[in-house]
Amino acid sequence: MEFSSKLLQQAVDEMAQLPGIGKRTALRLVLHLLRRPKEQTELLTNALSELRNSIKHCSICHNISDHDTCEICMNRNRDKSLICVVEDIRDVMAIEDTGSFNGLYHVLGGIISPMDGVGPGDLTVSSLVKRVESGDIKELIFALSSTMEGDTTNFYIYKQLKSFDIKTTTIARGISVGDELEYADEITLGRSITNRIPFESSLKS
Amino acid sequence: MEFSSKLLQQAVDEMAQLPGIGKRTALRLVLHLLRRPKEQTELLTNALSELRNSIKHCSICHNISDHDTCEICMNRNRDKSLICVVEDIRDVMAIEDTGSFNGLYHVLGGIISPMDGVGPGDLTVSSLVKRVESGDIKELIFALSSTMEGDTTNFYIYKQLKSFDIKTTTIARGISVGDELEYADEITLGRSITNRIPFESSLKS
Repeated sequence: MEFSSKLLQQAVDEMAQLPGIGKRTALRLVLHLLRRPKEQTELLTNALSELRNSIKHCSICHNISDHDTCEICMNRNRDKSLICVVEDIRDVMAIEDTGSFNGLYHVLGGIISPMDGVGPGDLTVSSLVKRVESGDIKELIFALSSTMEGDTTNFYIYKQLKSFDIKTTTIARGISVGDELEYADEITLGRSITNRIPFESSLKS
Repeated sequence: MEFSSKLLQQAVDEMAQLPGIGKRTALRLVLHLLRRPKEQTELLTNALSELRNSIKHCSICHNISDHDTCEICMNRNRDKSLICVVEDIRDVMAIEDTGSFNGLYHVLGGIISPMDGVGPGDLTVSSLVKRVESGDIKELIFALSSTMEGDTTNFYIYKQLKSFDIKTTTIARGISVGDELEYADEITLGRSITNRIPFESSLKS
C-alpha cells in the first residue's frame, strides 16, 4: 500500500500492531476517525493513555482495578473462604456475568506454556500460595482452559498446595446446556458420563 | 459485561465506537495493550492524535496529505490533463498500487446518497468544476462504485460539466481477470459483451 501521507502511514502502522487488525482494517479504522469530529479521537486516545498510566492490579487477587484492592476483594458480602483460580481478567468477567459465584478470585495472568516461554515464575502462583498460607481459605476452584497447558498449570498449583488442608475442585466439563448429544465430541461426552451427578442436584440450577 | 475498573470500561467503550469493533473485540485489544510495554500505547495514541490534528487535505485534489498540496499533484511527471474522479482516498491508493495511471485524481469525499443524507453539496463537486474551468484538463475518468449511488453521482457531475469541451470516460466493467464466465453475474457479463474491445487492445495490458 502506498500512502500519500506519512502521518496516515504511521497511524495505520501502529493500529495494525493490534492483534487481529491487518493493514486494510487499520486504514478503515483510521479513516473513520478522520471523518469524525476531533473530539472522538481525543476521547479514544485519552482513555487509552489514562488506562495505561493509571491502571492497577489488585494486590490480593491481581484483577485489574482502579484501586489497590479491587471491588470484589473489598466486598464484605463475598465468601472469602472460596477462591476461583482463573487465567485472565476476561474469565473473571465471564464468571461474574453468570451471577453463580460469590467467592473471590485469583488471576494467574496466564498459564504455564513452555512453547510460549511462560513458566510458573511468570504467573502469580507464589502469591496464591501466600494467600492459602495466611489461612481462612477452605476451597480452591480451578477454572482454567481444558487444554494441556491448563491441566499442567492446575497440576503444578495442586502440588504446591498439597501440604495445606484445603479442598481443591475443578469446574465441571460436560455437554453445553441446549447442545445435542450426537454433535458433542467424544472426550467431552465421555467425561460427562464419568462425572455424572445425582439427578436431584441438576434440578437446583 | 461487568468491568472491575472504570478506566478499563472507558477505554473499551471508546474502542468499541470504531466500525466493526464490538465490545468483546475492544476488550481483547485493550487488554493486549495492557500486556505490552507502555511505549506501544504511547506510540499508538500519539500517532492518532498527530494525524487527527495535523492532517491536511490537498487543496487541489482533496487527497489526504501532510502538506497543502499532495505529492501526486506536485509531481511534474504526471499528466495534468487527465483526472480520475474517485470516492475516497482508499480508491486513490488502490489505483496507485496498480501502477497503470499517470494522471491526477479528484477525491469527492463520498457519493450522492439521499438515503444517508449525502447531497452534491457535501462532495467536492464545485471544486472539480473549478478545476475544469481553469483549463488544461482534457479527460475525466469516472471511477466510482458501480451502484445506483455511484451512477447518480457520475451523471450529476456529467451534467455539471456538459458545457465544457472535455472527454468523460468511465472505467471498464467486465469479468475479472482469472474469473470463470459461468460464475459471473448476468449484468457484468452482459456489459462485458456490450462493451467488447478490439482483440488487439487486449494484448497490450
